[in-house]
Amino acid sequence: MNPEISIIMGSTSDWETMSAACDVLDELDIAYEKKVVSAHRTPDLMFEYAEQARGKGIKVIIAGAGGAAHLPGMVAAKTTLPVIGVPVQSKALQGLDSLLSIVQMPGGVPVATVAIGKAGATNAGLLAAQILGTYKPEVSQRLDERREQTRQAVIESSEQL
Amino acid sequence: MNPEISIIMGSTSDWETMSAACDVLDELDIAYEKKVVSAHRTPDLMFEYAEQARGKGIKVIIAGAGGAAHLPGMVAAKTTLPVIGVPVQSKALQGLDSLLSIVQMPGGVPVATVAIGKAGATNAGLLAAQILGTYKPEVSQRLDERREQTRQAVIESSEQL
Amino acid sequence: MNPEISIIMGSTSDWETMSAACDVLDELDIAYEKKVVSAHRTPDLMFEYAEQARGKGIKVIIAGAGGAAHLPGMVAAKTTLPVIGVPVQSKALQGLDSLLSIVQMPGGVPVATVAIGKAGATNAGLLAAQILGTYKPEVSQRLDERREQTRQAVIESSEQL
Amino acid sequence: MNPEISIIMGSTSDWETMSAACDVLDELDIAYEKKVVSAHRTPDLMFEYAEQARGKGIKVIIAGAGGAAHLPGMVAAKTTLPVIGVPVQSKALQGLDSLLSIVQMPGGVPVATVAIGKAGATNAGLLAAQILGTYKPEVSQRLDERREQTRQAVIESSEQL
Amino acid sequence: MNPEISIIMGSTSDWETMSAACDVLDELDIAYEKKVVSAHRTPDLMFEYAEQARGKGIKVIIAGAGGAAHLPGMVAAKTTLPVIGVPVQSKALQGLDSLLSIVQMPGGVPVATVAIGKAGATNAGLLAAQILGTYKPEVSQRLDERREQTRQAVIESSEQL
Amino acid sequence: MNPEISIIMGSTSDWETMSAACDVLDELDIAYEKKVVSAHRTPDLMFEYAEQARGKGIKVIIAGAGGAAHLPGMVAAKTTLPVIGVPVQSKALQGLDSLLSIVQMPGGVPVATVAIGKAGATNAGLLAAQILGTYKPEVSQRLDERREQTRQAVIESSEQL
Amino acid sequence: MNPEISIIMGSTSDWETMSAACDVLDELDIAYEKKVVSAHRTPDLMFEYAEQARGKGIKVIIAGAGGAAHLPGMVAAKTTLPVIGVPVQSKALQGLDSLLSIVQMPGGVPVATVAIGKAGATNAGLLAAQILGTYKPEVSQRLDERREQTRQAVIESSEQL
Amino acid sequence: MNPEISIIMGSTSDWETMSAACDVLDELDIAYEKKVVSAHRTPDLMFEYAEQARGKGIKVIIAGAGGAAHLPGMVAAKTTLPVIGVPVQSKALQGLDSLLSIVQMPGGVPVATVAIGKAGATNAGLLAAQILGTYKPEVSQRLDERREQTRQAVIESSEQL
Repeated sequence: MNPEISIIMGSTSDWETMSAACDVLDELDIAYEKKVVSAHRTPDLMFEYAEQARGKGIKVIIAGAGGAAHLPGMVAAKTTLPVIGVPVQSKALQGLDSLLSIVQMPGGVPVATVAIGKAGATNAGLLAAQILGTYKPEVSQRLDERREQTRQAVIESSEQL
Repeated sequence: MNPEISIIMGSTSDWETMSAACDVLDELDIAYEKKVVSAHRTPDLMFEYAEQARGKGIKVIIAGAGGAAHLPGMVAAKTTLPVIGVPVQSKALQGLDSLLSIVQMPGGVPVATVAIGKAGATNAGLLAAQILGTYKPEVSQRLDERREQTRQAVIESSEQL
Repeated sequence: MNPEISIIMGSTSDWETMSAACDVLDELDIAYEKKVVSAHRTPDLMFEYAEQARGKGIKVIIAGAGGAAHLPGMVAAKTTLPVIGVPVQSKALQGLDSLLSIVQMPGGVPVATVAIGKAGATNAGLLAAQILGTYKPEVSQRLDERREQTRQAVIESSEQL
Repeated sequence: MNPEISIIMGSTSDWETMSAACDVLDELDIAYEKKVVSAHRTPDLMFEYAEQARGKGIKVIIAGAGGAAHLPGMVAAKTTLPVIGVPVQSKALQGLDSLLSIVQMPGGVPVATVAIGKAGATNAGLLAAQILGTYKPEVSQRLDERREQTRQAVIESSEQL
Repeated sequence: MNPEISIIMGSTSDWETMSAACDVLDELDIAYEKKVVSAHRTPDLMFEYAEQARGKGIKVIIAGAGGAAHLPGMVAAKTTLPVIGVPVQSKALQGLDSLLSIVQMPGGVPVATVAIGKAGATNAGLLAAQILGTYKPEVSQRLDERREQTRQAVIESSEQL
Repeated sequence: MNPEISIIMGSTSDWETMSAACDVLDELDIAYEKKVVSAHRTPDLMFEYAEQARGKGIKVIIAGAGGAAHLPGMVAAKTTLPVIGVPVQSKALQGLDSLLSIVQMPGGVPVATVAIGKAGATNAGLLAAQILGTYKPEVSQRLDERREQTRQAVIESSEQL
Repeated sequence: MNPEISIIMGSTSDWETMSAACDVLDELDIAYEKKVVSAHRTPDLMFEYAEQARGKGIKVIIAGAGGAAHLPGMVAAKTTLPVIGVPVQSKALQGLDSLLSIVQMPGGVPVATVAIGKAGATNAGLLAAQILGTYKPEVSQRLDERREQTRQAVIESSEQL
Repeated sequence: MNPEISIIMGSTSDWETMSAACDVLDELDIAYEKKVVSAHRTPDLMFEYAEQARGKGIKVIIAGAGGAAHLPGMVAAKTTLPVIGVPVQSKALQGLDSLLSIVQMPGGVPVATVAIGKAGATNAGLLAAQILGTYKPEVSQRLDERREQTRQAVIESSEQL
């Protein structure tokens, strides 16, 4: 079966962050494809990729980038699929630049932005699943079960203080 | 037919911003319900609303709030529907507080955050439509047409310089 | 005797910070209870906890959280007990997000916010004691003695330069 | 009867903000005294005021200041009464300087900090009342009633969208 | 003669800022073309424009944009002509988002970034002329004359204090 | 001979930073006294110290502090001697809080603020010497010689690239 | 008699801010000269001015500038007289850029930085007087009298609340 | 042959950053000279250097500096050659001060600013080459080849995820 989720990132150095999105999709048993696509170094590939995504059966694109992070916004400019942007933590400004470059999109082209760094990547995976879950009850059910598990884990963790 | 999109906000003073989300859904002919629900002043109502949303047929919740903006994140904690957060521009810190309070969610509970203010609200409406469009070709088609119109508008506007 | 102070935090990872509040209450010989309660992962437990606090004899709640830190504000929305918020230092934005998410509450629901991190947690413990001390002279006396000790310590430390 | 709440501010220009604290205490029928006391222009008066506050029957001090806002922290250094700090919105940096100057106190001397500006002043009044309410049930009851009123107001306001 | 400078901007609303670049080029008698090209609303046009620029005789591209300002960086990704980025002042974050989105480019694709707003647009025009002036002595001479005039103007203005 | 420069700091943990001010005064052969004086933990000592400084022959006070750094401003409120404030780098906000708490003084009570951290402390020592040098030619001469040495050092260092 | 204080600024547009420094010196009956000197538009004049200042009898230089504010630091690099820097409030970043450009000087060349805007300019005038006052008792006495007046004014203003 | 590119920096400690500009010019086989020139410690040398640059055949100056980074702007004030500014990452504020001190130049004197740190230095080298390339086809061809190589590298790197 073709994957419905695509995970792209600007550089292999983003993998340490973005692998968290893959982990959560693996855990939820949702197929995805992953790829390095750079807005600045492979602009044509990026456009081609974004244009073809819907036709390939992709339903949600997760795009991670840092600094002047243009990948999520430019992919969003080339498709009307939902695009989730993950701000990768940058060295000097610690992801504030990544966050503002991704979230402050002009009216007309949204990017669904999540938190800076690894927690954001985890949430990108979950948000993609939630989007699938709007029409696939089995996915939303798995998400509800995961919520229940984290709830239990919190309650049990209280013993450790 | 029951609306599939819900637009909630913490106060009537957020309406000036959030009405832009309604405008875009009206334009796309997508039904929605709108309501004032405050995380801090009506916490129980908020929880009840979030719990019942999926059962009522809601597929996406758009939540706008400013300052220590807890509405989007708390609604997201009570449902696995996709929640879109709109940071309303605040008086002193101009929405930086709203943005960080909404986007910096911990791993486990995502909020799909858009830009501060009216452009963000417009994009929240569009993003909600894009989510519906993952399974409703007629919605994604209307979105593509809207894109084409804005493309034309840009090209024509160049004459005005 | 039932504790009059409650110390809650969103995750066991906040313990390293929040233990400083416990230390100061131990030092002042004030009883407290401590618990992991997560706004996003155990929202119902959080509401139940906040609702029952006054009835159990709690007089002040100290709540620590990081990032999009909603715990202090949401607890404050469910009780009229004084709630002290401790912004836990976050990884990317170093607690600026935690601080703004806690302190920028809308008119109607206050959170008594202290400094980011461990010094803030120490001060949360002291502030809780100061609140008890408004009607318990023995507590305010112990606080005055502690002040005198730190005064002496500063004066003596000057020799070390 | 002597007032139990004291409201001080660094300058008459802070009155526009700080009057919101008075309004809420008037509404709750709680007596207070108000005074201009400047950390930088009347330092001795400030110390004398802080030293005498507990003896006069004051239970909570609310202090508002802007810019390099030293009034709340310096008053807190001279008393173990709870001190609530209100960051007044400044001209150039819009209260970010006021906020950081008030909230980032070192371990040992807490200031209970509220939001920047008028909403913060309102909440300072409410927080002072909540502190009184820890041992005066009639005050906490009035606070609960106020909460119920704002809850109703939110619900009714939803009609106005 | 074909213009050697190109001035593009994401929207007609950027014209108020970007016209300052035109003014300075007019003053220096340097031909330019100007156009609305939007990274997000006309992505293909943007790529086509950037690809063809060198072939048309363009030597420097000036690109202005605000918010999540992707135009300068994406044009820079599609040409090895020097690209000057002008951060247009945004509503909520006053151009800090525009600045970081433009200047924080990854290694490999530079954007020559100037100040936020109108002064930046003026300087973009001057910088473009300085680049032409590296090989055209008549341009650098006009720039030197302009410098001398502003020097004189400063000296004379001192009388007005 | 009595020292003309006083170096005070809020805590021994500031010594690592403030020792740089001592080093430069040692190097310039200018006598100074140094002391831990805390605005928040020894407020009365601070006031007494500031009041007596001029009488003891002190001409310039250098005060270092971090976080909600009130020491320089409060000393400045109690004397009309020049007070130089050194923002010590803080843990969470890296000295931005220290800087704003020191520099944003209201009209009427200046603090001569230098850079965050060790470079600032070095410059505090130099600035104090420059102030003495306004009336002591031998001091300004030593400063000029130091400048000449650093000039030579820069020129020689260029070989190391 | 030759003036001992020099007030310079980068542009006549800074006059609105910098006139506050003149006002305070007029009030204290201290002679000063004032001049427009631009670091970027009249660099040679700036260097010449800084070099000659001490020889002309100037004891303190006050320099105001906004944005990438290089005037105070560059003047400080050319003289060992004390240089006071006034960050003029800028349009986009409201003086944060001016402040950081002035205060963050490297070790070796201090600038005595005051608050952003008009309050800073007032304090620059006072600080210059305080520096003169280290050797001129009649100046420090006038400063003490001014302090006493502002103290009285605060006390009287308290009636207006 | 005389070098056409000049690389200057305020201190040898900037070399770790600025060497990246040299690396890229070495890679492109473009001659350059490099030198330590400090705005604050060798101001006259800086002016002399900037004045003579064009006469020596220099076409582009790259200047790196940190903190209150005045070198790029002051060199730009003394020449009409294009000046590229590299904000070196500073210790406390991580280069935000360097960035604002360099980029926020007033209208009249542009500095072509690149990203903070090493990626910025790399891009400074590339931008200098792009400027040469406007008249030297062999340089722009080498730049195009480098782009093609990085494009290939991205595509190949995708295998490593």
